[in-house]
Amino acid sequence: MGAPVLTASDIEKVVEQYASGWSRRDIEAVAALFAPDAVVHDPVDGPGVEGREKIRAFFADFGAPVRAMSLVGPVHISGDCRHAAARLNTEAELGEGMTLVDSLDVFTFDDDGLIATMNAYYGPTNFHTA
Amino acid sequence: MGAPVLTASDIEKVVEQYASGWSRRDIEAVAALFAPDAVVHDPVDGPGVEGREKIRAFFADFGAPVRAMSLVGPVHISGDCRHAAARLNTEAELGEGMTLVDSLDVFTFDDDGLIATMNAYYGPTNFHTA
Repeated sequence: MGAPVLTASDIEKVVEQYASGWSRRDIEAVAALFAPDAVVHDPVDGPGVEGREKIRAFFADFGAPVRAMSLVGPVHISGDCRHAAARLNTEAELGEGMTLVDSLDVFTFDDDGLIATMNAYYGPTNFHTA
Repeated sequence: MGAPVLTASDIEKVVEQYASGWSRRDIEAVAALFAPDAVVHDPVDGPGVEGREKIRAFFADFGAPVRAMSLVGPVHISGDCRHAAARLNTEAELGEGMTLVDSLDVFTFDDDGLIATMNAYYGPTNFHTA
């Protein structure tokens, strides 16, 4: 990997764009943040989804119940601007009423400033019904 | 990896013990949470510290300025109880006054219920002076 192309401020914006894209249900905009060869594990113990096109399709399908996503607290960014982690609360229509999925998402960034990997940390204890 | 040996509740306790061990400055207790062959990156973009004994020595040295650590918000735990992530605020005496290091730590757990890997996500934007 070369020198970072993103600043900490840029990374904060990417994470905010990720959340706002989900809230707008703009899956194209969300997928566009990812590298062509990005790999997503959502949840982290789920299968890897490889490549922007498969990620877009996965988000459109698996993410269909998502109604809103918001950043909670700061974005935690490594000094080399290659790694970031953030708590992201997702509201999803998974059954009757709304479910809050309290995730913590971990990102790496590539030489083009795109998301290379994303792993979402959540499980049964992080689901809350409104 | 076999079936998980830890429950979500166990993992919450491990993370709490990690934080409380630091707050008590009980580095032995903190190191005992890690597997003999565990690998720590603290910060995530720093060198890997491999093995419990090197981790103990690293924590005693690098962690010497730490005065307290507290869990902020929930522990995010994968359904397979192999992965967890948590926001951990550390108070450290890095110069004059106290510095708050707002980290987000990501853990994996091995077949013995010990921490196999820990990566700490923080950088310059996550340091705050009191």
